[in-house]
Amino acid sequence: MSQAPDTSDLKTDRSRLRRSHERGHYDREAIDAVLAAMPMAHIAYEMDGAPSILPTLQWREGDYVYWHGSSASRALRAMEGRKVCLSVSCLDGYVLARSAMHHSVNFRSVMLFGEAERVHGDHAANSLELMFDAWFPGRWETLRPMNAQEFKATAVMRMPITEGAAKVRTGGPSDDEEDYALPIWAGVLPITITLHPPVDDPDARLEVPQPAHLGDVKIG
Amino acid sequence: MSQAPDTSDLKTDRSRLRRSHERGHYDREAIDAVLAAMPMAHIAYEMDGAPSILPTLQWREGDYVYWHGSSASRALRAMEGRKVCLSVSCLDGYVLARSAMHHSVNFRSVMLFGEAERVHGDHAANSLELMFDAWFPGRWETLRPMNAQEFKATAVMRMPITEGAAKVRTGGPSDDEEDYALPIWAGVLPITITLHPPVDDPDARLEVPQPAHLGDVKIG
Repeated sequence: MSQAPDTSDLKTDRSRLRRSHERGHYDREAIDAVLAAMPMAHIAYEMDGAPSILPTLQWREGDYVYWHGSSASRALRAMEGRKVCLSVSCLDGYVLARSAMHHSVNFRSVMLFGEAERVHGDHAANSLELMFDAWFPGRWETLRPMNAQEFKATAVMRMPITEGAAKVRTGGPSDDEEDYALPIWAGVLPITITLHPPVDDPDARLEVPQPAHLGDVKIG
Repeated sequence: MSQAPDTSDLKTDRSRLRRSHERGHYDREAIDAVLAAMPMAHIAYEMDGAPSILPTLQWREGDYVYWHGSSASRALRAMEGRKVCLSVSCLDGYVLARSAMHHSVNFRSVMLFGEAERVHGDHAANSLELMFDAWFPGRWETLRPMNAQEFKATAVMRMPITEGAAKVRTGGPSDDEEDYALPIWAGVLPITITLHPPVDDPDARLEVPQPAHLGDVKIG
């Protein structure tokens, strides 16, 4: 299964968006599509001299990917002004071949390299609203507004979309020519990420109907 | 949404499996459950002086987490004998609160820290079989056996499960007391990862019925 999401070539190259690569898409359209499909991201950074990971949610604004967390987060403070690597992956299926070697996975992934930067003030406040627009469009306006203390407690981070790539694998297995004659089943087990109907807060004290904007939430 | 999978506390502590932490589970049972539910992993490592990520699939054997790739992979070679951080995350739901601040996500995640080691020979060969047992039980025996060239082309890696933790968030939003009086809908949008019925290889040249072992594949 060495053809699984091993992006070593990508990472070796640290290519600008122009390079061509098997399964690799360095065009912004492909990158933006993956970022829009899957908010879950893993961000690698260095902490105390060792690699570490922050699993978090990302959103895009123009030529930047954003994430946020607590102002007190040691992870976010360790990242600021430092090189990070952000990865977003959707597992789309198991690809079952006639030999162990040609098993693989279908996936969409994005890998970005760059320096993490914290944004402040109106920029940060505006970005938190855009975060809601990205994940829960129509919801921001319905909420109790954020107060000064909450803004202060929230750190908003970003990195530019300049270095990196999207990689996509789709389709069935690619077996060795002679193996197609073997009576071994091969194919794909598709995998999707599914959003289910809203579940009301069991601690609600008022009966509030489910708002229409819930229907606009998408994932995958 | 600072309560999203921000695991900065975990990463700061680099705790042994004993510590207690809000939402944190340092017991092996919790860690093993997440590893078994989600093969997709992100591994942070250092490449050319900067943090990088390898998205790959993991499986567990006893007190180690394993992954594999091409023997030629620069990523795997950069990891060998070096510190890495492995993260496995399942996004289980969007938690929608009455204020922006208390939005969150339900998730299960594992973060492990340790040194990556390559295993060789019979150990590697045996582990590849155990990899199939983990992801596709019953399938290994049905395949065209691996040959010497394929074994040579495959690198099997592992790290010990000694430093790290599982973190889990479940349930509805936790709003500020006074916000419960507001007529704002709150609740959860559950998210699951779904395995779909097998799709036959369109390039198959023989009609081979779908084997029963496909029904034993699980994810999520």
